[in-house]
Order: sequence, then structure tokens, then C-alpha cells
Amino acid sequence: MCIFCQIIAGELPAHKVYEDEQVVAILDIKPVHAGHILVLPKKHVANLEEISETDLSAVITVVKKIGGLLKEKLNYIGYNVVENNDPIAGQEIPHLHFHLIPRLENDGLNHWAHQEYKPGEAEEILKKLKS
Amino acid sequence: MCIFCQIIAGELPAHKVYEDEQVVAILDIKPVHAGHILVLPKKHVANLEEISETDLSAVITVVKKIGGLLKEKLNYIGYNVVENNDPIAGQEIPHLHFHLIPRLENDGLNHWAHQEYKPGEAEEILKKLKS
Repeated sequence: MCIFCQIIAGELPAHKVYEDEQVVAILDIKPVHAGHILVLPKKHVANLEEISETDLSAVITVVKKIGGLLKEKLNYIGYNVVENNDPIAGQEIPHLHFHLIPRLENDGLNHWAHQEYKPGEAEEILKKLKS
Repeated sequence: MCIFCQIIAGELPAHKVYEDEQVVAILDIKPVHAGHILVLPKKHVANLEEISETDLSAVITVVKKIGGLLKEKLNYIGYNVVENNDPIAGQEIPHLHFHLIPRLENDGLNHWAHQEYKPGEAEEILKKLKS
């Protein structure tokens, strides 16, 4: 069983912020900032491709709810929602989870650099995506 | 009207990857990597707190769909889903949108450093969240 499945089964401790039939939210034990939360489906799925639309809707509804709590209860004024989909994208535990990362003024957390498309490149990508 | 509302209204050009009654997906014109996509609700809402659960479910369903296309059509093996919720979190356009950022092996994009909670700090946060 993966570490999240063990938490869901009650075999490993966790700080549960929220729980319903389909979804659990826990404190990340190694937060970027205090109040960093993970929202995950109870059913083990590796990534977005594997989760059902119903379960995904349940998960994102809880993300919205928890985001509200970060503002209302912890007085944060903004946060990032991040889902690292697959190991190449930094996913460390192969059980789908959304991070909610509260942010502080001037916390120095950088965002990735953006680039320009070469002429015709965007059109080529679009063509492939719609093929 | 915000720039996304202008795109939705057809007043500004964009590379539309997907469109239905509630949701639009477009290529980010300044991608982290080629195929970087933005998924947004047609109804103008600033953030997760403002969007209805129904519209949010529609948006995340399209995120899932587009993630599949990144793998199937562009041969990526993973991607990040990111929603910057409010200016402090790096949100540049005040109309809720999810980024899908495809990833490459050893692309050097870093993830934010994690910290340890001080003794008792996590319990304090949990108590506030559940109050």
C-alpha cells in the first residue's frame, strides 16, 4: 500500500483537516509554509488520467473548500494549487494529490520562466493537439 | 473586460485547443514548454472562492482531458497542473485559470523547498483550521 493509502486506512498517523466518503485533506508534514495542505481521493489512482470524473469533481470541490479555510481561518490572502502529474513533474508519491500552498508577501518563491514560441510553432502544436 | 473575457468573446485572438459551453482551453502564448495550456471558465471569476462548484467541476474535467492530450498527441510523459490563486500567489490575470505545464527530462525546473514544523506548530494550525 502507498503511504497515502496507509494514512487513509488509519495505519499511519496524519493531521486530517477534512474527510468525507471520497476525499481526505491532510497537513503536508514538510510544508512550504505552515498550513500547506494535500487533498487526495481515497481511491488509489496514480494521476489525473486514472481518476474518474466524479472522484475528480469531489476532490476539486474540497480543494476549493480548503482554499477558503486558508483565508478564513489562517488569514492567508492567496495560495497556489499544484498537482504534479507523474514523476517527471515532481510527483513523489504515486497517489494523485493536490497541494494547497499558502503564500506570504515577498516569500521569494519563484515561478518558472516563460519563453516565446518560434514562428509557426504554436500552430504546429495546436494542429497536433486537435488531430 | 479582462484579457481572457476578451478572448472568450472573440475580441482577441488565441489558439483555442478546446471549447464547450462553460470552459475554454488555449495555448499560453508564452509557454514554459511548448504545449503549455490554460484552462478557464467562460464566466468571469477571479479565483476558486468565486467559482461555482458546477463550473469548477467542468473546468477540472477539461484539465483532465487536456492532460491526456499532452500525453497522447504531444508524447509528453508528465505535466504540472497549477492554479495561482490571487496576486500574492503569482496570479497575473484576475480570471481563474489552470496551467497545464508539460515537462521534459532534466528541464531544470525547480520545486519549492519544504520545511519542518516546529513541535506543536502543526497541531496549532490544525486546531485553527477546524475551529
